[in-house]
Amino acid sequence: MMKLQVAIDRVTLEEFQNSVIKLDGIVDVIEVGTSLIKDYGMDSLKSIVSRIKQSEVLFDLKTIDEGTYEFEKGFTAGADTLTVMASSSIDTIEQVYALTVNQEKKMLIDLLAVNDEKIEELRQFDKAIFGLHYSHDNKNQDFDAVKAVEQFHNNFPNIKNIAVAGGIDIEQASRLAKQRIVERIIVGGKIMNNETPVEMAKKFMEVIK
Amino acid sequence: MMKLQVAIDRVTLEEFQNSVIKLDGIVDVIEVGTSLIKDYGMDSLKSIVSRIKQSEVLFDLKTIDEGTYEFEKGFTAGADTLTVMASSSIDTIEQVYALTVNQEKKMLIDLLAVNDEKIEELRQFDKAIFGLHYSHDNKNQDFDAVKAVEQFHNNFPNIKNIAVAGGIDIEQASRLAKQRIVERIIVGGKIMNNETPVEMAKKFMEVIK
Repeated sequence: MMKLQVAIDRVTLEEFQNSVIKLDGIVDVIEVGTSLIKDYGMDSLKSIVSRIKQSEVLFDLKTIDEGTYEFEKGFTAGADTLTVMASSSIDTIEQVYALTVNQEKKMLIDLLAVNDEKIEELRQFDKAIFGLHYSHDNKNQDFDAVKAVEQFHNNFPNIKNIAVAGGIDIEQASRLAKQRIVERIIVGGKIMNNETPVEMAKKFMEVIK
Repeated sequence: MMKLQVAIDRVTLEEFQNSVIKLDGIVDVIEVGTSLIKDYGMDSLKSIVSRIKQSEVLFDLKTIDEGTYEFEKGFTAGADTLTVMASSSIDTIEQVYALTVNQEKKMLIDLLAVNDEKIEELRQFDKAIFGLHYSHDNKNQDFDAVKAVEQFHNNFPNIKNIAVAGGIDIEQASRLAKQRIVERIIVGGKIMNNETPVEMAKKFMEVIK
């Protein structure tokens, strides 16, 4: 069954807490966005995160160096899943992968701005989730998640755990569910910037199950 | 004149504050390390940073996406210089470069884990500082800053503003000063883990001036 991960970003700590309480148990995974980590720090976020009882928690740490330090901090602060950049050195990815497997947690490798050669090299980390990531800063705004997944799956048929993010709406979510390739979809603004985020999250959950 | 940048990492907020007060005016640049940003967040750090009156301040933000958001936050929180990963998309680097030049601030492009082709592409950002970065996670522990700088300068003679980090001791600092290539050296543990960091910082300042 495909999961729904909802990314929370660029809000106050109070808004973050309110969102977390409302979304807990409604969505599969609550993502603590990179903006929250860099603005408030994991030390401030962990007490709010501890209120999440039913949904899984992902911290979008975007680790690129100091892998062991960051991953230990992240899991201690309450994350079930942490992210590492595919563009990190292989040494960093090996470190965080070993730590993650050892702690029976999960990691997502963010494929932002890497080429196919690097992805080939990362295939060995077969328990990781591979995140097809549409850059927020990309000028080319016509990213199509369904097509991107299809193409990625054709290029790397052996990569099993795939996540996709980038402007996914209800219609695309439904198509991605029918496509049966990705393990999870990641939705941010389309839910969090809606007037009634919880209702919108429920609609996404309906179309993907 | 070559500058000394001292990186503060993996300490409590209280230890960070004490270090900042002691090092202000002693070293050229105080670096707020990535670990402090991800552990405590820029919102918590900015009141401590506001106590720095004489040294310059660099936040090692390691931006890799959401460039404009992160750079606006970083400069507002008191940084004179922010870092962006060379492995970011060109769109991200263009965004933060424009914002930095517009605000008359500085940026450092962290060359961690990129190839020469990407560095060629980044040469256009000629007001940026290019950071030769030795990964903390690298298994190969025999990095030689002096040789790395010489080699980089031979490969990219047109890149003017170079910073170097990675296990630099007093002897290497002295050699880097005589080499007259880099704009600044970045020293972390060799100063901060010393029993008397201020005395050690002064020794570094002496040998490089």
